[in-house]
Amino acid sequence: MTDSDVRLIDMTLRDGMHAVDHQFTPEQMADVASALDEANMDVVEVSHGDGMGGSSINYGFAAADTEAYLDAVVPELTDTRLSVLLLPGIGTVEELDLAVEKGADMCRIATHVTEADVSAEHFEFVEERGLEANGLLMLSHMASPETVLEQAKLMEDYGAEAVYVMDSAGAMLPQDVRERVGLLSEELSIDVGFHAHNNLGLGIGNTLAGIEAGATTVDGCLRGLGAGSGNAQMEVLVGVLEKAGYDVSPDFFGVMDAAEDVLLPMLTEDTMPELDNDSLVLGYAGVYSSFLRHTRRVGEQFDLDPREILVELGEMGVVGGQEDMITDVAARMAEDEAATADSEADD
Amino acid sequence: MTDSDVRLIDMTLRDGMHAVDHQFTPEQMADVASALDEANMDVVEVSHGDGMGGSSINYGFAAADTEAYLDAVVPELTDTRLSVLLLPGIGTVEELDLAVEKGADMCRIATHVTEADVSAEHFEFVEERGLEANGLLMLSHMASPETVLEQAKLMEDYGAEAVYVMDSAGAMLPQDVRERVGLLSEELSIDVGFHAHNNLGLGIGNTLAGIEAGATTVDGCLRGLGAGSGNAQMEVLVGVLEKAGYDVSPDFFGVMDAAEDVLLPMLTEDTMPELDNDSLVLGYAGVYSSFLRHTRRVGEQFDLDPREILVELGEMGVVGGQEDMITDVAARMAEDEAATADSEADD
Repeated sequence: MTDSDVRLIDMTLRDGMHAVDHQFTPEQMADVASALDEANMDVVEVSHGDGMGGSSINYGFAAADTEAYLDAVVPELTDTRLSVLLLPGIGTVEELDLAVEKGADMCRIATHVTEADVSAEHFEFVEERGLEANGLLMLSHMASPETVLEQAKLMEDYGAEAVYVMDSAGAMLPQDVRERVGLLSEELSIDVGFHAHNNLGLGIGNTLAGIEAGATTVDGCLRGLGAGSGNAQMEVLVGVLEKAGYDVSPDFFGVMDAAEDVLLPMLTEDTMPELDNDSLVLGYAGVYSSFLRHTRRVGEQFDLDPREILVELGEMGVVGGQEDMITDVAARMAEDEAATADSEADD
Repeated sequence: MTDSDVRLIDMTLRDGMHAVDHQFTPEQMADVASALDEANMDVVEVSHGDGMGGSSINYGFAAADTEAYLDAVVPELTDTRLSVLLLPGIGTVEELDLAVEKGADMCRIATHVTEADVSAEHFEFVEERGLEANGLLMLSHMASPETVLEQAKLMEDYGAEAVYVMDSAGAMLPQDVRERVGLLSEELSIDVGFHAHNNLGLGIGNTLAGIEAGATTVDGCLRGLGAGSGNAQMEVLVGVLEKAGYDVSPDFFGVMDAAEDVLLPMLTEDTMPELDNDSLVLGYAGVYSSFLRHTRRVGEQFDLDPREILVELGEMGVVGGQEDMITDVAARMAEDEAATADSEADD
């Protein structure tokens, strides 16, 4: 890792891609990467929002392919390391080989928090190719600290040099972060990371809580770009960590300049992250943003507040791919409401 | 106070006035107050951003006078209590009498963190008139926890029913909040409050830290409106507190509706709170926003990064009214830089 207390991974060119519908051009990526390198950022991550191979009908086509993005970014990096993201089932070994050939230094392998076992081969591939391998446990709020630890240990066994607690839905409170990151820090012999989203306004607060609990590598995006209401705002995070007395590699004013002089002119009002009611209720319920549109439609159908349905889905712990359950849940809620109204009318 | 664990004070119509240059109309105030009352908000605060009497050349003229605002808001409130803000030196006893006549339930009296002694008479006036009196210690980050306690004890002696730690510049880290609120909670026999700004992205995180440390009354604004990068975002705060298991009076979805259906249409891109580089560096340096414009001008004059000057001013603990020091400080910094450059050239 680095000599500093905390390693910072800037994902503006990866998780930030979600906010711009994966439409950054290779030239834009080069400009952002260059500014981050100049500011001494530890790592930049470059991929489609859903990782290499994500550019598709399912996940949305990116403005360019992995090769074009890496060709644009690599010449801009001097000391800053280059990470790529790989989701088993989306990214393939061909893309990994391409990233190696182009000069990636590390690969982060992400699975659902209870499915680390699907990543064993991927870690093997990454290590065989000499890259630093990190494991990311997505939607970690859906599992108990003990389950997160068990899954993290699998990734440690597979060869991960760091495992991340990912608050993918922005659903954690500082206490949730402390419990999970704290347990992993005690029990693992590798580095522990934390990745925040801002749906509950806790992007910075949770990242600080994670670091206090032992995380030594954390994620952020310039201007807080990212899926939902965005990630931890990187330039703010650097300032907060400096103010809190942590030794970090990036230069505070340099990262601020990258955010406002370089990235900001590439954004529009629509692509700026915003903590609005939609992202808030997703974080509160702890469900993925893909549920929002379906739930609105179903809410109208059953004359229910879609927020009530989302909260119910969150309590049931539904995950992506289970969108067909929304109608069932709404139908049951509407029945319950009708029954309650009947029994009240009887009184 | 209330039966709930934490009392919530919505300041959209007071601190939020800063964000709209004090231009909310009485009709707009009535609409926001009505939505907040319907959502069971504990308290709404209505005043010029700088308190009653703030409408002036110095602080900016409001769209209407205190009487018109109170006449518009009072009929909308059923269970929600009405607070007004009074800054000694700005607000007068005439305005206080007007607020009493119009039906205010409480008055919050705000002084600089080391100047509580100027508020003794004001507390007396408020109590004589039968209102709940609260004391606010502004810019509490500039004083040690022990000094904040000493000043809070003065306000307690004067008759305050609650004293607030105000992070007026958004400069505190969670640890700073815990130290100050924690000490006051231990040592005072009255309620302790906390008021956040979001300059370091910690509006929600710090408020939660304050409540964990013993605060039982906290402030926020719908959509995070407010001076600088805004206050704690009220609808987010309600959701976070519910999720964390606190019993609060306001209805989460109702406050969300007030934020997005009622307030949001009144805002423009320019009046929406934003965590940009300007507000970030003010929070990092811990200085008031009035320094920003002067510092930019002086920075150009001496060929210095204005951010460096702001950080230096923050370390010196300068406060409003000391803007003339900016040129002196910049001149000294420019001399130091020149001397360093000379000595390096000599080597």
